[in-house]
Amino acid sequence: MPMVGPLKLKAQLLCGDELAMGPGKADLLEAIVGEGSISGAGRKLGMSYRRTWLLVDTMNRCWAQPLVEATPGGGEGRGARVTPAGLEILAAYRALEAQLAKASEGPLKALEQRLLNAPRSSQHGASQDEA
Amino acid sequence: MPMVGPLKLKAQLLCGDELAMGPGKADLLEAIVGEGSISGAGRKLGMSYRRTWLLVDTMNRCWAQPLVEATPGGGEGRGARVTPAGLEILAAYRALEAQLAKASEGPLKALEQRLLNAPRSSQHGASQDEA
Repeated sequence: MPMVGPLKLKAQLLCGDELAMGPGKADLLEAIVGEGSISGAGRKLGMSYRRTWLLVDTMNRCWAQPLVEATPGGGEGRGARVTPAGLEILAAYRALEAQLAKASEGPLKALEQRLLNAPRSSQHGASQDEA
Repeated sequence: MPMVGPLKLKAQLLCGDELAMGPGKADLLEAIVGEGSISGAGRKLGMSYRRTWLLVDTMNRCWAQPLVEATPGGGEGRGARVTPAGLEILAAYRALEAQLAKASEGPLKALEQRLLNAPRSSQHGASQDEA
């Protein structure tokens, strides 16, 4: 996801209860473009084949047209490609991210002035939180 | 976090490895304003006292000035208030969220046209994923 200085931005598109597009799925589409297969993309991203395949299946079920399709041929090493619709959706998502990053620059200034570079240590022995 | 139609946006401000401000911490500050105590705010948000207190501690360590301070008095039910610096940071964070929501409207249109209202069912018996 885009980082703008200390700001981390995340944009997720929902389709019902499922996540149609987000940072992980956009990265996966780019990896499929680069690797030419679902299995290769999963390896590149350090994901299991099953997980990679589930992400592709979810994407293909959430949009009017499939984003990824098998390339002709068959067998164990058969390939996959991102469809023209998938490439357009990927580009539109990256454009949305870029627009969000740009829009954050102004409002971020007031916050950055007060934000420390590193946290002070806790006076109470507290551990980190994640909220 | 702001929802813009099917789009879920999340903005997180990092201070080193810790999260200085995000949706949960902003909600917590608002609950402290409303409830007048850390324990009351935690109850309102359904969090344990320990967790609520850790979130406050993290915020107070990440910014140039504390965001939350104890109100005078003492004992079990002693109160807390959001400091003037805390109120300014909260307002600036909410302004950032609003700016992001506004900036997303244009780029979102191209995506919404292709997004289904609900996912098609899987042809392969796959379960949901969370990426």
